[in-house]
Amino acid sequence: MDAKKTLAEFAVQVEAELDRFFNKLIPETQRIAPEAVQALEILHEYTLRKAKRLRAALFYYTYLMLGGQDKAEAVKTSMFIELVQSYLLIHDDVMDQDLLRRGKPTVHTIYKEFHKQMSYRQDPLHFGESEAINVGDIACHLALDVLTTANFPAENKIKALHALNRQITTVGYGQILDVFGSVQEKIGETDVMRIHNYKTAVYTYETPLLVGALLMGASDKDGLVLSGYAIPAGIAFQIQDDILGMFGDEDKLGKANDSDLREGKHTLLIVKALEKATEAETELIKKALGNPELTDEMADTVREIVKCTGSLEYSKNLAVKLVKEAKAALAARPQWQGEGRAFLDGIADYMINREF
Amino acid sequence: MDAKKTLAEFAVQVEAELDRFFNKLIPETQRIAPEAVQALEILHEYTLRKAKRLRAALFYYTYLMLGGQDKAEAVKTSMFIELVQSYLLIHDDVMDQDLLRRGKPTVHTIYKEFHKQMSYRQDPLHFGESEAINVGDIACHLALDVLTTANFPAENKIKALHALNRQITTVGYGQILDVFGSVQEKIGETDVMRIHNYKTAVYTYETPLLVGALLMGASDKDGLVLSGYAIPAGIAFQIQDDILGMFGDEDKLGKANDSDLREGKHTLLIVKALEKATEAETELIKKALGNPELTDEMADTVREIVKCTGSLEYSKNLAVKLVKEAKAALAARPQWQGEGRAFLDGIADYMINREF
Repeated sequence: MDAKKTLAEFAVQVEAELDRFFNKLIPETQRIAPEAVQALEILHEYTLRKAKRLRAALFYYTYLMLGGQDKAEAVKTSMFIELVQSYLLIHDDVMDQDLLRRGKPTVHTIYKEFHKQMSYRQDPLHFGESEAINVGDIACHLALDVLTTANFPAENKIKALHALNRQITTVGYGQILDVFGSVQEKIGETDVMRIHNYKTAVYTYETPLLVGALLMGASDKDGLVLSGYAIPAGIAFQIQDDILGMFGDEDKLGKANDSDLREGKHTLLIVKALEKATEAETELIKKALGNPELTDEMADTVREIVKCTGSLEYSKNLAVKLVKEAKAALAARPQWQGEGRAFLDGIADYMINREF
Repeated sequence: MDAKKTLAEFAVQVEAELDRFFNKLIPETQRIAPEAVQALEILHEYTLRKAKRLRAALFYYTYLMLGGQDKAEAVKTSMFIELVQSYLLIHDDVMDQDLLRRGKPTVHTIYKEFHKQMSYRQDPLHFGESEAINVGDIACHLALDVLTTANFPAENKIKALHALNRQITTVGYGQILDVFGSVQEKIGETDVMRIHNYKTAVYTYETPLLVGALLMGASDKDGLVLSGYAIPAGIAFQIQDDILGMFGDEDKLGKANDSDLREGKHTLLIVKALEKATEAETELIKKALGNPELTDEMADTVREIVKCTGSLEYSKNLAVKLVKEAKAALAARPQWQGEGRAFLDGIADYMINREF
């Protein structure tokens, strides 16, 4: 299976569902207030921005792998995780004070600009951040309601909702740690891996797999097998993300490849480089990290250090090892076959070979 | 029934359940990270601060009124709405930039102070607000999970969860409007009533009633009857809150009775007074509203204007009328009897006669 192509074709389907969802919801909200309509229109545009829809696809193909037959309902239900994604990203954008997300203004920035345009009272940024908290909260409940009202047995939905809430609670702990990481002087490999684990592996991979499987009535033991795939595959995904964020082709990536550095992100690449770096190299990295006036030369120097300390190679090798681990975990369930299984195997490989 | 006494006795029960809940959860989170434990300890203390537990009681007694028998499970389940309350208040505190909640530091203030104490990098307030967004999100998912895992039939829980998500989405719209209200120059009675409706009536009253009833398998028509009680009772509750916020006894209230004025809250009292006020009186109100240097004399002058324009009387009469409407709505279900019914009748009256 060409997992890249399958993912692209699936993305079109879930995006069509999301469009239908908002086009139905928005007119219903007109009776409440124009500000509610505006909030949903912002959320609609934000959610439909160019994205891989990896989480929705992981949900969908796990459901198929476990024997699911109702493809139409599963595609529709997969919207839940894209709405969860909007919820978490909107809040994350506020915490990271990001101006752009997927090349366009973040929700708090949209509201900030609206405040200025309307010449409202008080601080535009605080207004923007407040409304972004609200839009994120609304996205959360819309997401949960998609899953709650989906056409699957109530018993299975309850199990899936329990898993979802538990997982997002864990993501919340990861987010707590991430915010701590942004204000602490020193963070090491353990901290980075812990954040990768809770934010990316648990959320991006494990959550859609568990929810998809539980809608098919999967057992706790099935869940453990799926986690055995999801956690290493998710960490590998994040490592590749960090590599692309520093060495990727900006045109293919659609974003600057020095923004992680500029934001001072303690990626595994940086942490490992710092472990091996000389005093002079350490100084150069520290000067670049989180520097809003970062130059191309400074970024290139850091890239060079990351390479020559062996940190890049370490990360690449680790990602390959983790993907092997992930695929091996699924071997415990030879009965899981078909396009679902083919997708999970294929996507794990693709995610560490992708260029964007 | 002495609804005040019943409420106080119920509060002790749900608080004991909340204590047990956190005391079980916190040790389980130790394996994640000390920062996760800290977040839950903050949430524990925040949730257990002195409060009426009105929402939990409305849920519990509606469940009983609809024929519910499992009192122990219902008390335990009623925690969900107190956790929702923490979630919404923590986010609200960030939006309103409040330093205190129930006489103690707000969550973002606790984290802001922790940041200073630890001499972390970057802005302490932004750190505090970010962690408060996270703690609020965590409270949201803990709340939903309490309801998801409660020992009631899955079909009923799905209906209750659907109602809950729909209701909190509506609260989100109310919150969007509220934030707009805080930056707009002019807001009228319609806007105030709209905010009261979505924030207080829908959330504080309608939500616990619907969830309690749906766990007992209530029909859509039963839901309409309950809404017919909840919406007017909820608006009356908020009107009384606003009256106490300006005319209440500070010792009984446990907070300043000029803070609504100082914060520039456009309560019905203010809006109605402005409608009738002379130019000179309008100037005096505007000078006081949202003025951080508000003096006792200025506050007293505004109180005087609110009285002599008939605004106070208007609000009081409206609250009485709304409570009558609320109680009359329940007459459509004479079969709803017992301590549940007695509580709903009694609490509607008590809530507009209360002194705190």
